[in-house]
Parts: sequence; structure tokens; C-alpha cells
Amino acid sequence: MIIVLKKNSTKQDLQALSSYLEERGLKAHVSEGTEVTIVGAIGDERKLSQDQLKALPFVDKVMPVLKPYKLASREFHPADTVIDVDGVKIGGKEIQIIAGPCAIESEEQLMTVAHEVKKAGVKILRGSAYKPRTSPYDFQGMGEEGLKLLAKAKEETGLVVETEVMDIRNVETVAKYVDIVRIGARNMQNFNLLKEVGKINKPIILKNGISSTKKEFLMATEYILSEGNSQVILCNRGIRTFEPEIRFPLNIGIIPLIKQETHLPVIADPSHSMGKKSLIAPISKAAIAAGADGLLIEVHNCPEKALCDGPQQLTPPEFSKLMKEMRAVAESVGRTL
Amino acid sequence: MIIVLKKNSTKQDLQALSSYLEERGLKAHVSEGTEVTIVGAIGDERKLSQDQLKALPFVDKVMPVLKPYKLASREFHPADTVIDVDGVKIGGKEIQIIAGPCAIESEEQLMTVAHEVKKAGVKILRGSAYKPRTSPYDFQGMGEEGLKLLAKAKEETGLVVETEVMDIRNVETVAKYVDIVRIGARNMQNFNLLKEVGKINKPIILKNGISSTKKEFLMATEYILSEGNSQVILCNRGIRTFEPEIRFPLNIGIIPLIKQETHLPVIADPSHSMGKKSLIAPISKAAIAAGADGLLIEVHNCPEKALCDGPQQLTPPEFSKLMKEMRAVAESVGRTL
Amino acid sequence: MIIVLKKNSTKQDLQALSSYLEERGLKAHVSEGTEVTIVGAIGDERKLSQDQLKALPFVDKVMPVLKPYKLASREFHPADTVIDVDGVKIGGKEIQIIAGPCAIESEEQLMTVAHEVKKAGVKILRGSAYKPRTSPYDFQGMGEEGLKLLAKAKEETGLVVETEVMDIRNVETVAKYVDIVRIGARNMQNFNLLKEVGKINKPIILKNGISSTKKEFLMATEYILSEGNSQVILCNRGIRTFEPEIRFPLNIGIIPLIKQETHLPVIADPSHSMGKKSLIAPISKAAIAAGADGLLIEVHNCPEKALCDGPQQLTPPEFSKLMKEMRAVAESVGRTL
Amino acid sequence: MIIVLKKNSTKQDLQALSSYLEERGLKAHVSEGTEVTIVGAIGDERKLSQDQLKALPFVDKVMPVLKPYKLASREFHPADTVIDVDGVKIGGKEIQIIAGPCAIESEEQLMTVAHEVKKAGVKILRGSAYKPRTSPYDFQGMGEEGLKLLAKAKEETGLVVETEVMDIRNVETVAKYVDIVRIGARNMQNFNLLKEVGKINKPIILKNGISSTKKEFLMATEYILSEGNSQVILCNRGIRTFEPEIRFPLNIGIIPLIKQETHLPVIADPSHSMGKKSLIAPISKAAIAAGADGLLIEVHNCPEKALCDGPQQLTPPEFSKLMKEMRAVAESVGRTL
Repeated sequence: MIIVLKKNSTKQDLQALSSYLEERGLKAHVSEGTEVTIVGAIGDERKLSQDQLKALPFVDKVMPVLKPYKLASREFHPADTVIDVDGVKIGGKEIQIIAGPCAIESEEQLMTVAHEVKKAGVKILRGSAYKPRTSPYDFQGMGEEGLKLLAKAKEETGLVVETEVMDIRNVETVAKYVDIVRIGARNMQNFNLLKEVGKINKPIILKNGISSTKKEFLMATEYILSEGNSQVILCNRGIRTFEPEIRFPLNIGIIPLIKQETHLPVIADPSHSMGKKSLIAPISKAAIAAGADGLLIEVHNCPEKALCDGPQQLTPPEFSKLMKEMRAVAESVGRTL
Repeated sequence: MIIVLKKNSTKQDLQALSSYLEERGLKAHVSEGTEVTIVGAIGDERKLSQDQLKALPFVDKVMPVLKPYKLASREFHPADTVIDVDGVKIGGKEIQIIAGPCAIESEEQLMTVAHEVKKAGVKILRGSAYKPRTSPYDFQGMGEEGLKLLAKAKEETGLVVETEVMDIRNVETVAKYVDIVRIGARNMQNFNLLKEVGKINKPIILKNGISSTKKEFLMATEYILSEGNSQVILCNRGIRTFEPEIRFPLNIGIIPLIKQETHLPVIADPSHSMGKKSLIAPISKAAIAAGADGLLIEVHNCPEKALCDGPQQLTPPEFSKLMKEMRAVAESVGRTL
Repeated sequence: MIIVLKKNSTKQDLQALSSYLEERGLKAHVSEGTEVTIVGAIGDERKLSQDQLKALPFVDKVMPVLKPYKLASREFHPADTVIDVDGVKIGGKEIQIIAGPCAIESEEQLMTVAHEVKKAGVKILRGSAYKPRTSPYDFQGMGEEGLKLLAKAKEETGLVVETEVMDIRNVETVAKYVDIVRIGARNMQNFNLLKEVGKINKPIILKNGISSTKKEFLMATEYILSEGNSQVILCNRGIRTFEPEIRFPLNIGIIPLIKQETHLPVIADPSHSMGKKSLIAPISKAAIAAGADGLLIEVHNCPEKALCDGPQQLTPPEFSKLMKEMRAVAESVGRTL
Repeated sequence: MIIVLKKNSTKQDLQALSSYLEERGLKAHVSEGTEVTIVGAIGDERKLSQDQLKALPFVDKVMPVLKPYKLASREFHPADTVIDVDGVKIGGKEIQIIAGPCAIESEEQLMTVAHEVKKAGVKILRGSAYKPRTSPYDFQGMGEEGLKLLAKAKEETGLVVETEVMDIRNVETVAKYVDIVRIGARNMQNFNLLKEVGKINKPIILKNGISSTKKEFLMATEYILSEGNSQVILCNRGIRTFEPEIRFPLNIGIIPLIKQETHLPVIADPSHSMGKKSLIAPISKAAIAAGADGLLIEVHNCPEKALCDGPQQLTPPEFSKLMKEMRAVAESVGRTL
């Protein structure tokens, strides 16, 4: 931690700061500059509170030097984490496409789509039974009935299945039916929910909040990891920007940036990010070229009857065509799909 | 709902759209323009799904005409809602300052601050026992022990007390000890938590998400109102912007805008918004001049020892001086404090 | 400047860095921490290039310690700058309301409004003759004809007059006709235009860019000041946010923040910021309560016929009422108006 | 244009609106809904002023139906525009990499880099002689001397050359020395500069403003096109976001979106967007996969001595390796490079 003192600070102030640091097991290393005095806190800066330091009346600025996350970092775990779900590997050379309907709406819908995406080469089926909706008057999902359909789809097709959990009281139920549990953007900082999924033994897909920073995203990850669950998949689902015609533009640079700094698999969600069909194919290919380990893509047998997010769901033929195109790009960057 | 058709749409498309609307109890009113065809859906547009309409292959754009929230709107409830908590009125002519420490840290701290703010003229004491923290390694609050201290402070001073709830499993416990329950920014779209506090009989302070729109904020409010709890206080706690030197700048315009459109009391949180002491006084006065019905202001007897948010907490003498200044501004706009 | 080295940096690297600093007249002060090595560059950090330092292969992070602006800072000029234009003072105890139409449209319009705002107590008349418009197909302003009308209005009413310049080739012409020259948000970083107005002897109102930071705003100011023109008035005209219903929300906290750090007068533009009539009165009062030295307020005798920005322009009676309300708030914070 | 009336509007209001529309050659088509009255303005909506309509006291909302840009749209010009500069084609099947140093610093630097990028397969050399810098105290470019070096590099290598213009007074000079003229992000809405480059007969690269919308970007394009210059290349250089560790994240979705709506070539600038070396390769490949027609990539023979933007400039060997990788991705999406 680097602490910059105010211009009019005194020797007493410096003394007080040194004592403060020593009490916490660190040492003050003082640099008297031509204009300001800077104190380097030598030792484990994670034992210091930036807030307390900033509240000292003679402190001007506090600048942390170390990254605040540990378990997610490459320093802690240099090699890539590869998550294995029933033999399906996420984070390795093979890129995983996680496809299926936005919301589970009926047995017929889910089974039709499950068979279609499997035929196109997909190994993981997505589908939400609990839907966080901006309006309380909108369709909120099928609940446990939907989870049962997912389990049935798994049984019928052999696909690995994943779904969202949004209520801390449903974590156990969800974990009973599915292989991979997803936490949505709105719950990225629902810390108690993160702690709860940190206690189960299932891979977790964690989506970034729509205006969160990389640091906040990785600190949220740290909530899960620090409870003992080391199988976290980081999903870029886009951010809010000033552009009204794209729902949540993908900050594509975050994919390689997070890959460089953490050991966890990183995927992207072009469907929720783009919000419109015509952009999903180019952005799926771009995410693969940027190094994504997988994609979440929504597929619906009849998008115009979808109970939510119809405009962004691909039909099975559209999806099948995209799979081929993505495969070519994956190979061009040394991956398989 | 206004539906703009694509340029090459056919009579069959128009027919299909009309049927779609009629099935849902609405009527199509067609305007053939020089360049595009526009369909007005006459009837209750809340019965339509924008997503489904946008997913129709011949639809270009869908524009809702009505506001999506009902119970929060002035159309539904024209007069101002005034919430009465043990005789303390929020939303009336008197502006309420809700003051106290960010986090409850000890009995001595809470009691000292409680007596100080009361002396300065405050009627409602704030204090958090559960703290949502970006890092799992930071102080997470005293939990139920903190709630007990709040109840004790109420008993000793007669102040109304408020605190935050962040876990759906704690709603009942929190409601047992305090008078007013607060939902923080990170939980603005934790919909199941909103539903749960919608079922208790206590006023709820709902803070806006750091990048949410007014519409999303009011739809979150609607989640509480639609469960039967009509005592919602809307708190502007600032938004994320590109300015690194102010934590969450206050969109001051949202105060009168929400006051004009809803009947609910609107307050502001200069402490969390500004994040630094020197800005709290001017922004508190600005919020009052803009029409706020109250403010959340953090006061700590020893900010540099605060376990969180020290830089933004006022000392009792600083707070007491601010109370006088705010009173002058309140009177200049025809309010009392 | 504080330079954090990468973990695997060597003694040779440190040596290279020391030489780099010494060549530029600074000294390296090395702190070897438990995890990383930090180098404090002692001396005038403005002689260093952050970019060059960051490009060194063994450098991890570079953190400047000093503020990059000089002439605008309170360190350079501790007392408030009060600008005097023909006896009208900006930056003193008296708050100046700069009122008039958005665009100058005709002699009749300008004269009518000029007389009305003067009657209400205004001393400075605003009006644009050159209009930066998003679309090339929209009204672009009356040009020099408009400037002549402004000069005539000054002659008739004795009001100080101000207008916008947007083309470097018009700086001289504009300076010939008006007392105060305005640079709009889109030109905040039109650096050559800034340099040019830095050479004239007229006060300059500089508006912030819609997504610029405080630092960028003050560095733009520095472009004007460093050419010799010390009469700069900083105008907060709001920022782009995610809220679609307010045009450019005012970051109200920036007003006291800039007042604390610089010696220059700070004003606000509620009209362009809010974009709708119903918000102008509360936000004008809020800006005054927050410490603004003045306001730009648009007044039009017939807003629904205005060639631009009609929805935000007040009628003379609306404006006159607001003047009285603002006066009360100004007095409550120890100012006059 | 669709005009929604306020709830309490009268027949007189409707009559007034009809007259207003008729005076401008349009017709009112009225839909009386259950809750509100909606008026469709049939005719050329570009003849209407949204501002004037919104300022009418009985109007609630105004929603345009048509896109405000014409000359840039696919409706106006359905086929892709392919720009030919001395036989080098931009916007066709071949992707053009425009490479070279950020700023021209010396003859040796420019010639070295020019030969290196040519060897790697590049056909267009970039280099700035005029640099817009946030601080007036930073290096501002070599000016006309730099332009002469560019012309010399062209002569020596046969490469097409491009550079930035930022001052309206330099347009002619710049056009004399280079083949392609670039307008930077800060000048995207320097409308008079746009008009001026609209009058020359050289291709223009127009970069988006850091917080501009697609609509504003295309309207700025329209300023150039409407002056008669139809050779505009749209460059995505990223946007400002809340992520502090990436300079200007690329909204990758905007590439296919603009390609779908306009006929103009679209390129991206991974160097200025990412701001750090380690992200340039993955994002360059992503932009190609997303459909970009070209890229601007900065190459410097000695980045740690670069006078600006060192951290983002590739060395010739790094660049040469990237060229090969990009070629593979280009081929995977059916393009050449």
C-alpha cells in the first residue's frame, strides 16, 4: 500500500502513521519528495483498511499495490483450471457451446431444442426455470417443474445440463437436478448467494454485473472460491453502455484480460449481450477468436412464441449453420469445437 | 404499443399481427405511411410481450406508450404518500434526516452516536448490522448482535431505527428489531428479496442500483408494492460514472423527476454517493433544494477508526453544523427540518 | 511518480530505471517490499512520460502523485478568481444568472427576451449564433447576423452578452461583438480552438465534455490558461448517463469538488443538462445550494416555435418566478442574486 | 414521426397539431387509444422538428420512425462501397491492415517501421504528425515536417499513407501530402472540420467519439457525405466504460451492426482501444472474425522510447507474428489478408 500524505502534514502525523502500520505488522518506508511525502507500507497490505487510512486527517491518497483477489489469480494457481463435468471439459483446448432455450417453457419445447442442439454437436444444454424479470408482471419461470424437465432432457439425450439459481433457498433443489449452476448478472453481488453456491460441489457459471469492473467480478468469484468451491466459470455477458441499439455490448477485451490474470475458464454470452439475432453469429465468432473457452447461445424452436427474449434466440437451422462457422474460427486459433 | 413494420412486410404479415393482437384483447389501428406501416395496438398494452412482438420476422421496432409501473405512479395514487413511523412523518413538509454510523461496531459507538444525532435534532437513527462488502476478506458486520444494539438505542433514546437487510433468510429477524428496513443498491434487483419485504408491515427504503434506470428502479419498487407493502421510500444513492474522484455521483435531477411521477417519498444518500467528507455538506443542501424528503447521512464518533467507509463519515460537531445549514436551505424552499 | 516493478524484475532493470530517472533530473527512491519493488521518482514528475515508463518491459504500474494541472490549481493561485466584465462580477459573492434564448432566431425574439430577462434582474444575456447540431440537416444558426443582433441587444439594454464559438476561424469575429465567449461540450478537447481563445482578452466559458473526467476538464482549461488568458469560467453542463429521461444529468458533486481544487468560477447549465422544463427550477436551486457561482438558463418568448431546444426553454413569466425562488436559496447559503 | 398526446389534451390541441403538420406537408393520422391519443405524422418526418413538437404543451412524447441519416444508409446505397486508393481496396474481400507508429518522431523511426510493416504484408502506412494530447505540456507532434516524412516514406516504399488532421486550417496541407485523412475521436463532432474534409477528394477515416452512439456517429458521417465526399471509412476505436484496466473497450457488436445498416467500410483500432500490448493480438483477431474490413495497428521499432502511447505499440517481430495469425482468422471467415 502506498500512502501519500497531505502537503502540510507534520512529523507527528508521520509518527502516527508508522505506529498504525506497525500495529498491523507492517513497516513504513518513507520517501520525502520535493513536493509531497510518500509512505510505502511494507508487509501484507491486505491487513490494512484503505477506508481507515483515507479517514486519517493527514492522508491525501491511498494506492493499493497488490491485487485484492487471491484464489482466482494466476499467482495462486499458475496453470489453467480445466473443469470436467461427466467427461465434458471446460477450459481446455475444446471450446464448449452451451445451447438451449432462454426459459424452459414446456416439455415439448425443451426436448425439441435439446435434440436439435445435440445434433449440431453441443454437449451442454442450457435452460432457465427461474427467471429474474425487471417487471413483477412478467413470466417468472416454471420453477421446480422446469428443473424436472431439465433432468429428463439429460436422461433422454445424455447432455450435461445447466440452469440459473436466483434465490438462496433454492440452491439445494437446483443442485439436485442439474450439473452446472448459473448465477446471473443481477446477483453477481448477492454475496450470501455466492457463499451458498461456494458450498456445493457443482461448477458455477458466474456472470458479470452489467456495470461491474473486472476487479469486482473477480472479488465476487473470490466469495465462491473462498467457501471451497474451486469450479468457477467466468461468463462475460456484456455491459451497459450508451448505445441504445445493442442490449449489453460485449467488452471483448475482458476475455483475454481475465484469461491472462486468472486460471479459470472464461466464456461469453452473445445472446443476452447482443439481444438481436443478426449480431449473434459475428459476435460468437469474435469471442472465440478472442480466446473464449465457451459460449452460451440461446436456441428456440419458435422464437416468436418464446415467453422471453424471443428476438435473440436462434432457430435450430440458424444455430446449426453457426456451429459450422464457429468451428472454422476455432480451428484458425488452434482450438477445437 | 406502437409497432413499426419492416419495409417489405406484406398484407399477410399485417393480418398475422392483427390476429396476434386480437387474441390478447387488443385491436390493430393501421397507419400506412409514405415509407413505413405503423400499427397502433389499441387496448391494454401491458397484456402484450414486447419480446414476442420483436421476434416476429416482419416487425422492425416496438415502442411502448404507457409507463410499465402502476402502483408507484401518480396516475394510480395522485396524492403524496406520507409514511408515519411512530409519529415521525416521511414524505410530508418536514424533511427527515436519517443519521448514524455506517456500520454498527460496538455498543459504545452506537450509543454515543445515537445521543449525538438526537441532540442535533435527528429523529431516525441508521446503522448497518449486515454489510455487503466487495471483498469476502473485509468486515461483514455484527449480525444479530448489531440489531440488538439498535433496539437498545431505540429504547434509550426514543429514536426510530433503520437498518439494511441483504439476505432473504434474515427478513423476519430484522423486522423484529427495527422500524424501517433498507435494501441496498446491490440488491435492487434481488427480486425474491423484494417480494419478501413486500410481505412485511414495515416501511422499506429501497436504494437504486448504481447503473439502473429510473424505469428499472420503479419496477423494483413495484415488486414490493405488488406484494401489499405500500410504504416504500425511494433513496437516490448515486450512480457509477466515469469520474474517478467521486464515488457514485448523485443524479440530482432524478429527485424531482421521481417526485413528479410517483407518490412515494424520495430521499438521498450523500454519504455513500460522495464518499468524501468535503462534499457531503454542499450535496446535502443541494438535495434539499432539489426537493428531497429526507437524507441518509453517516455520522461516526471516530471516523478514522471506523471499520468501513471512514472517509465519508462526519464527526458529531461537523454533523451538528450541517444540520443548521440544511435547516436554512429547507426553509428557503418552504420546508422544515 | 510511483513505479511498481514486475515481480520478476532484476537488479539490471532497477539500474536501468534509475538511469532513466536521473537523465531527466529525478532520483529513484527504492522500497523493496515483501512482494514487489516500488520506486518513488523524487523530483518534478511532470518531466516524466507515463507512457514511456509503462512501455518498459519490467514495469507493472505507474501512478502519478501530483495533479497534472498547474495554472488552474489552488496551489498556484490560492484565492478565488473574480472575473469583472464591465462591472459585472463572476466568482464573487453575487451569483450571476446568464439568461437568454438557446439560439438567436430574429431581432424581435432576441430583443423581447433581452428586455424580459433584464427586468427579472439578469445582468448577462446569452444567445448562440453558431449552433453545433448533431444533424447536418438541422438549423445551424444565424452566423454573423446573430452576433450583430447580440451587439445591438447590448447597446439597447446595457446587458453583458455572451455567445458560443465553434470554429477557429470565427474567434476574432466573435470576440469583436461579444463580452464573453463560450466553448461548448463537443469542443472541450478541440485543442487548437482552446489555444486560440487562450490568446484573446475576453472571459471564456468552458463547458465540460459529456463524458470527460474532472482531470480532462481541467487539462482543457490549462490549454486556455497556458496561452495567457486567465479568465476562464468552468461550466458544468451535465454528463451522459444510462438514464434516458434526463438529457445530460448534472453531476452536482463536481461543483464543490472543482471549487475546492481550483480558483476559477464554476457555473452550471440546468437547461442543457435537464432538457425538460419541469426539472429546471429544482436543479437551478440545487446548483446554487451546492455552491455554483452562476447559471446558464434558457429563456424564450415562444418555446414551441424555437428552432432548437424548445422543450427546455422557460417563458419569461416562468423564468421571473424562478429568479425569486433562486434568490431565497442563494441567501440561505450566504450569497446574493 | 409518432406523437403521443398528454392524457388531458383537447380537441383543440389535436386540431392545432394537425395544422402544424399540414403546414409542413404532412398529414395527421389519429389513433384514439383506451388511455392515450396517438398521432402518426404521415409524410416526410425529416421536415419536422422533434424539439418544436416536444415543446407543445399538450405533447407527451415524440418518437421518430425513420433513421435520421440518409446518405450513409443501405436504403440509399444498397451495395458495399469499396474505396480504391492507388489500387489498394478498402471494403472488399481483402482486409487492409493499416500499420505504423502512433506519432511520427523522426525520419529514421518512420522509415524503419515503414519497411518493416511492408515486409509483413501491409499496404497502408499510418503515422500522426499532429497529436491531440490531453495535456498542453505533452508532445504535440512534428507538424508539417512529419507530413513530409510520410510523403517520403510513400516514395521509398510505395505504401499508401494516412495521417490525422485536427485543425481546420491544416486540411489542405494534409491532403497535399497523404492519401487518406483521419479524423480522431475528439473531433467526431467538430462539425466544421467534418464539412471541410467533406470537400476534399481523399478517403476519410472517421473515428467514433468515446461516448457517442451509433446514431451520432452516422450523423457525423453524414456531415462529410453531404458535402460531396463519399469515401468515408468508419473506424471503431472503442468507448469509455467503467473498466479502468482497458483504455477504451471495443464495442465489438457495433462492427456488424454498422456493416448491416450502412454501405461504408468499417475498420477497428485495437491499439488505441486496448492501450496495452497483451490484448492487441486477441482483439485484432476478434475484430476480423466480427467482420471488420481493416484494422489500424500501431508498430514502433522501440516502444519504450516512443513519445506517446508506447505501451500499446507492437515491435516489428510481434507485428509480423500477428499478421500470420490474423491471416488464418481472415480465411476462416472467407476473407483474405
